[in-house]
Amino acid sequence: MKTRAVLKLGLPKGSLEQATLEKMAKAGFNISVNDRSYVPYVDDEELEIRLIRAQEVSRYVEHGYLDSGITGYDWIQENGSNVHEVGEFLFSKATRQPARWVLAVPQDSPVKSVTDLNGKRIATEVVNLTKRYLKHHGVRAEVEFSWGATEVKAHELVDAIVEITETGSSLRANKLRIVDTLLVSTPRLIANHAAWKDKWKRRKIQTLALLLRGALEAETKVGLKMNIAKKNLAKLLKSLPALRNPTISNLSLSGWVAVETVIDEHIVRELIPQLKSAGAEGIIEYPLNKVVY
Amino acid sequence: MKTRAVLKLGLPKGSLEQATLEKMAKAGFNISVNDRSYVPYVDDEELEIRLIRAQEVSRYVEHGYLDSGITGYDWIQENGSNVHEVGEFLFSKATRQPARWVLAVPQDSPVKSVTDLNGKRIATEVVNLTKRYLKHHGVRAEVEFSWGATEVKAHELVDAIVEITETGSSLRANKLRIVDTLLVSTPRLIANHAAWKDKWKRRKIQTLALLLRGALEAETKVGLKMNIAKKNLAKLLKSLPALRNPTISNLSLSGWVAVETVIDEHIVRELIPQLKSAGAEGIIEYPLNKVVY
Amino acid sequence: MKTRAVLKLGLPKGSLEQATLEKMAKAGFNISVNDRSYVPYVDDEELEIRLIRAQEVSRYVEHGYLDSGITGYDWIQENGSNVHEVGEFLFSKATRQPARWVLAVPQDSPVKSVTDLNGKRIATEVVNLTKRYLKHHGVRAEVEFSWGATEVKAHELVDAIVEITETGSSLRANKLRIVDTLLVSTPRLIANHAAWKDKWKRRKIQTLALLLRGALEAETKVGLKMNIAKKNLAKLLKSLPALRNPTISNLSLSGWVAVETVIDEHIVRELIPQLKSAGAEGIIEYPLNKVVY
Amino acid sequence: MKTRAVLKLGLPKGSLEQATLEKMAKAGFNISVNDRSYVPYVDDEELEIRLIRAQEVSRYVEHGYLDSGITGYDWIQENGSNVHEVGEFLFSKATRQPARWVLAVPQDSPVKSVTDLNGKRIATEVVNLTKRYLKHHGVRAEVEFSWGATEVKAHELVDAIVEITETGSSLRANKLRIVDTLLVSTPRLIANHAAWKDKWKRRKIQTLALLLRGALEAETKVGLKMNIAKKNLAKLLKSLPALRNPTISNLSLSGWVAVETVIDEHIVRELIPQLKSAGAEGIIEYPLNKVVY
Amino acid sequence: MKTRAVLKLGLPKGSLEQATLEKMAKAGFNISVNDRSYVPYVDDEELEIRLIRAQEVSRYVEHGYLDSGITGYDWIQENGSNVHEVGEFLFSKATRQPARWVLAVPQDSPVKSVTDLNGKRIATEVVNLTKRYLKHHGVRAEVEFSWGATEVKAHELVDAIVEITETGSSLRANKLRIVDTLLVSTPRLIANHAAWKDKWKRRKIQTLALLLRGALEAETKVGLKMNIAKKNLAKLLKSLPALRNPTISNLSLSGWVAVETVIDEHIVRELIPQLKSAGAEGIIEYPLNKVVY
Amino acid sequence: MKTRAVLKLGLPKGSLEQATLEKMAKAGFNISVNDRSYVPYVDDEELEIRLIRAQEVSRYVEHGYLDSGITGYDWIQENGSNVHEVGEFLFSKATRQPARWVLAVPQDSPVKSVTDLNGKRIATEVVNLTKRYLKHHGVRAEVEFSWGATEVKAHELVDAIVEITETGSSLRANKLRIVDTLLVSTPRLIANHAAWKDKWKRRKIQTLALLLRGALEAETKVGLKMNIAKKNLAKLLKSLPALRNPTISNLSLSGWVAVETVIDEHIVRELIPQLKSAGAEGIIEYPLNKVVY
Repeated sequence: MKTRAVLKLGLPKGSLEQATLEKMAKAGFNISVNDRSYVPYVDDEELEIRLIRAQEVSRYVEHGYLDSGITGYDWIQENGSNVHEVGEFLFSKATRQPARWVLAVPQDSPVKSVTDLNGKRIATEVVNLTKRYLKHHGVRAEVEFSWGATEVKAHELVDAIVEITETGSSLRANKLRIVDTLLVSTPRLIANHAAWKDKWKRRKIQTLALLLRGALEAETKVGLKMNIAKKNLAKLLKSLPALRNPTISNLSLSGWVAVETVIDEHIVRELIPQLKSAGAEGIIEYPLNKVVY
Repeated sequence: MKTRAVLKLGLPKGSLEQATLEKMAKAGFNISVNDRSYVPYVDDEELEIRLIRAQEVSRYVEHGYLDSGITGYDWIQENGSNVHEVGEFLFSKATRQPARWVLAVPQDSPVKSVTDLNGKRIATEVVNLTKRYLKHHGVRAEVEFSWGATEVKAHELVDAIVEITETGSSLRANKLRIVDTLLVSTPRLIANHAAWKDKWKRRKIQTLALLLRGALEAETKVGLKMNIAKKNLAKLLKSLPALRNPTISNLSLSGWVAVETVIDEHIVRELIPQLKSAGAEGIIEYPLNKVVY
Repeated sequence: MKTRAVLKLGLPKGSLEQATLEKMAKAGFNISVNDRSYVPYVDDEELEIRLIRAQEVSRYVEHGYLDSGITGYDWIQENGSNVHEVGEFLFSKATRQPARWVLAVPQDSPVKSVTDLNGKRIATEVVNLTKRYLKHHGVRAEVEFSWGATEVKAHELVDAIVEITETGSSLRANKLRIVDTLLVSTPRLIANHAAWKDKWKRRKIQTLALLLRGALEAETKVGLKMNIAKKNLAKLLKSLPALRNPTISNLSLSGWVAVETVIDEHIVRELIPQLKSAGAEGIIEYPLNKVVY
Repeated sequence: MKTRAVLKLGLPKGSLEQATLEKMAKAGFNISVNDRSYVPYVDDEELEIRLIRAQEVSRYVEHGYLDSGITGYDWIQENGSNVHEVGEFLFSKATRQPARWVLAVPQDSPVKSVTDLNGKRIATEVVNLTKRYLKHHGVRAEVEFSWGATEVKAHELVDAIVEITETGSSLRANKLRIVDTLLVSTPRLIANHAAWKDKWKRRKIQTLALLLRGALEAETKVGLKMNIAKKNLAKLLKSLPALRNPTISNLSLSGWVAVETVIDEHIVRELIPQLKSAGAEGIIEYPLNKVVY
Repeated sequence: MKTRAVLKLGLPKGSLEQATLEKMAKAGFNISVNDRSYVPYVDDEELEIRLIRAQEVSRYVEHGYLDSGITGYDWIQENGSNVHEVGEFLFSKATRQPARWVLAVPQDSPVKSVTDLNGKRIATEVVNLTKRYLKHHGVRAEVEFSWGATEVKAHELVDAIVEITETGSSLRANKLRIVDTLLVSTPRLIANHAAWKDKWKRRKIQTLALLLRGALEAETKVGLKMNIAKKNLAKLLKSLPALRNPTISNLSLSGWVAVETVIDEHIVRELIPQLKSAGAEGIIEYPLNKVVY
Repeated sequence: MKTRAVLKLGLPKGSLEQATLEKMAKAGFNISVNDRSYVPYVDDEELEIRLIRAQEVSRYVEHGYLDSGITGYDWIQENGSNVHEVGEFLFSKATRQPARWVLAVPQDSPVKSVTDLNGKRIATEVVNLTKRYLKHHGVRAEVEFSWGATEVKAHELVDAIVEITETGSSLRANKLRIVDTLLVSTPRLIANHAAWKDKWKRRKIQTLALLLRGALEAETKVGLKMNIAKKNLAKLLKSLPALRNPTISNLSLSGWVAVETVIDEHIVRELIPQLKSAGAEGIIEYPLNKVVY
């Protein structure tokens, strides 16, 4: 009797859980979490899902308890995990800015650079990253693990914090000033080294990466379609390099073509007025599930 | 003065309510429920909606209080309702498995088949279905109506239960073992016999069925579009029967065509890697609202 | 050093907030509200967002604290604000009926028309609109500001109310009868007169209007695509004027064309049965993000 | 080795669950429900709790799966359960009115009494009670089980309903008229006949009843304490029979006594003004946990 | 036939609703609000309750639609209502500070006193109060009605605000500075003048006031009980004037007495250490429902 | 100018926050948390509250950022904090069992004692406690910090866990077996050494401890009051040692006394039946706010 091949995949539990499950669904893998079971259901017999804190995924991939996993670059570095990095993914649609771990102090603090921290106390969730950073700058300071609400501590419990931020608005709301950036972090698909050497597992992981990338890519892209008179086409394409490699199909109405392409969603707002000026008509934008080049 | 013709339609209230209203909206009928009124608003003057428990829809369709309704095959059978069945719909996207009413016992129960139930006690919400099933197998057992939490009862209050399940994961979490399947149930659109004979009502119901089916069909399908060199096209289509009846349009770039088709969403994850190997470029997947063949 | 040009835009806070942020996102402007800050983040450096009660937006646009804003026609009128109206937008998808401020009384009230209100007391949130309306009809009545739950007051605290409604179902549930309509209101994009004269601001507002209109338009429209034999095409287009200006592209299968168009979502339910009768095959409907004619 | 004696007690799950657990806590039995376990924790090793639908408690007590249980008189009657009734408890504090199952019809229905229901259709959750009631009045009507939202059905799906009510306000809000009362129901503590014969179990059940009654009694009672001059005491006690059996203690201040008693909470609002008139001073009212006469 | 006498009582709907219903329940009047009815149930046939915005209660009491009502002194003044004020109640337990309407500006505003506001713009919910205040100080400024989020407006939309505060912490969090206090407001029981002249209604209102005061009084008081040797009693009472008018009862243990009294809850924390020093033993503190002197 | 003396007190934020604030309120200190400010309001000018994770309180007390704090014995030990322990408090009422950190493994694990863990991997939130425990038993194993959901990890990610439990029911639900107990933990009031030497701060902390203990004591105690004939009193007191040091007061009814005492709430359920047998009448139990011996 032949055993069914299975890939054990770790996904981040907690604040990123919902977003990750949605992206997996867009990639084509529907996962449903049952409160009474720690093994979620997935509609692919070749996958076994585990929901694990983002902070711990790389550790269990390294040990081989998981074949593969999705986690942030920050936690791979914090844990110093020896794993194979399969791919980096795009940033969240909302801000289009990657997460950054930054050194921050109160707005009126005398601290201007990392070198002012000698002999000070720093609170953070990424103790190892912070110690390496201080060492690199030749600074001796006490680093203590923060169990949460780190931003509030900067005002009286410690001298500085190392905290994660995207837009910086939470730091500003807490009247903190960014002194330096330690690490820019993006989500990564990682694999255990042995799993990556296994041919079947490697192909499964690569397929997963391809589909996931296609789904993430699609989140920041849209389809754009318009009609234009043939005589205006060359000018349109020349003046708008964003419309790279469009699909141009002949219309039955002689002298007109349909132009269709996929573009970054965030340039649409600049592009549409220009398209109208260039003679495009019937412009429609439609959502995409996946984009694979 | 001519009276406006109206079709009275029963939709399932409760756990299926939200999903049904969403599917009706996809079919093109926007319904809004007002807490202070038992008649929901629908943007179609030819429809009157009633929200009724799934268990009771078939009863009120049979009696003629409703012209038509959506309910499960299970409750039509449990009620023994004499109604016209207009159509069966596809299963939920999440699991792609129909609901099943199963006979279940504790994992360590001595009961191995229905015939071991002679003289035992069984709890279930579908008393009639269960009695018919036992009679069919020549088993004499006591069947009692369960008001809820049936799965918990199997361990000490009764000897077996007949319960609904999709993936079986809730039964497993309760440490129950499936002994047999009594009924596989899918959602049905049903009509009162007299309403079905009325020409206007029949056409209204058929239109509703067409649109609803189109919307449900679209939930498990996606649109797929790609460019390919003409020379590779024949091979692509031959090796990938899933791409049935594609729309192939000429591109202005000589020697290239655009291939577009609609496929089952759950085969996309296998198909995309193959399409890339076959030379397809610029593959995009997009969502659909309706698919009508 | 050149200052970055910025447009200050007021969006309605409260019950319309979520809907407005979603529409802005569809228009291409992603806004995220931070509970600790009154300045929401927007991924456009040329915009500064303020969330302000719909009732007050026109006042602050008039005063110049805001360059532009989105609010209802009703509150522009109630405040008597002197602002430039850039555009009117389409109604909500759910009901496709604009909001109306109506004069309502209990179902069994002797009041049959506005002229029966002499010497009576009326509760409303729009005191100025109501007073102007009464004056126009030569009616002398007391108008008092209602802080909420206005519908309940009509039964014993006052003689009539002026209240907002879309479908009238909330009024019916409160057993009130509509006597007259004072004002039909739709959302408007407005601008401060000075801002409108500023060339940069005006173009920014116009771009915003174009994209917002494109996004709102898309909410009530869908894309429709089908294949048909060339010989049936003329008949199809003739009998179905709704298919205006379709994109018709040749298929590789000789004798067939693909017909694609954008139509109002609410006529799809009538159209699809007709398309099938006319010989269309493989009909698909897909969602749109933006439609710009 | 001697087995520890245990009493298996069924408590109502669902809408009454929280209230019952609170009353048990007041009686001195702290129960905590763990979502992952169907056996709640109770801080008494001699008790084992099961949470079971109120509708089913009497059935499982009758069969002996439970030794004892708390449920309503209505469901004991509906199930026709042969159990020992240990005691009846006081009504809910909020309304001080017992629950009643009533026959109700639309306000404008021609039905004036039960005898008008011949040949009609009635929806109810208590099918057996309703059938017995109709038989008793010599009425032949169809009775169908209602899965919920029974009040709404009276207006078009059936001719009458039998529904539970306390104040009647929900019936009034649904524009229904009460035709007759079938049954007045109060909570009961019941016991399995065999368990009641077992000496240890009987004593355990009696203790439970004593404490539960003490706790329920205390919910509708308060402690009242006041000082009064001795010379006014006789008059006070004579004129206020509600102050039965007060505890009168001598104060050190000569000529004054402290009067303390327990009275029904709902007469306090009439009593306090009278006490002041009668010369009482320093009146205080305090809450009680248990009252055992 | 004699009509039952009824007092129509208005209670504040909205943010104060839950607190008011709880206090009414403590006073002995159990009110339950049914979502489908605007007339709440109360277990006193002589009362009819209406839930009305605090801002409007005094207006409807003045007009006679209500006989009596509970509202804040601020809204009586803002509305300029001519009503009989029956009584003032104690402040909320949490902060023991009355609500104040204050004039506030940004911390770094040049405005130092009300006289700096000439020609400025002020946002507030209490337009009339603010105008009277400005007039009183001979200041001419524009006052505009604020529909909410007034605190945020002070930073850019207007020059100053008049806003309500208890502890000032919300103003501090918004970086605002208090310039002056316009009005200190406490809850009041008010009566329509005609109702107050009606003997039955007046007595009903007075009873309500007595019980409500007793209940509110009890919220800030506790019962305190302790044993002490007779020889230490005089010293105890002398040194602790807070223990006014204690009830002293003889214990059976010769030479000892029990001392019992009612004191302000917020001095307990200072008193208990002192009582212990003075020789008190077995000190217990218990909660009170009502305190009527 | 003299500065006001202030004690900085750290309270546990998060899961214990609500319970702690309630206990502080019972002790007489009303704290209200404002979402926009990290300094909660407290109605005592001599206190300044900080909400800090229970895991971190002892660290900041040790460093002197806080004068005093409430936290668990477990986290004082885990952090190895050098602080003054002022007092230990009673356990939660619900279970009356202290929290325990236990070593647990899957039910079918071969691990029978800590010595079986050589070379294994253990996940826990208390890494230091676990390492010290292993060292004490001479076991070499890998200990890794668990960010949460530790119980689930025991089944496949690690070999054993060290986790906190009260009743053990969550461990049982996860099918884990307790191997050993590392630490029994109760809440502690701790003080910074310097603060404890400051006379004013020490007295403030002691008062806080006295009141908090009084409030916590009161949670597990009740007042009990009854009348009894003098002739039965001696027997009653003799047979019921639980009634220690009762207050016995003479009643005006000759031959009868009132007996009043404070007892553990959890023995009431055994005591009341015995009191009735011994001739007690009018037994009432009432709640307590504080009990100070």
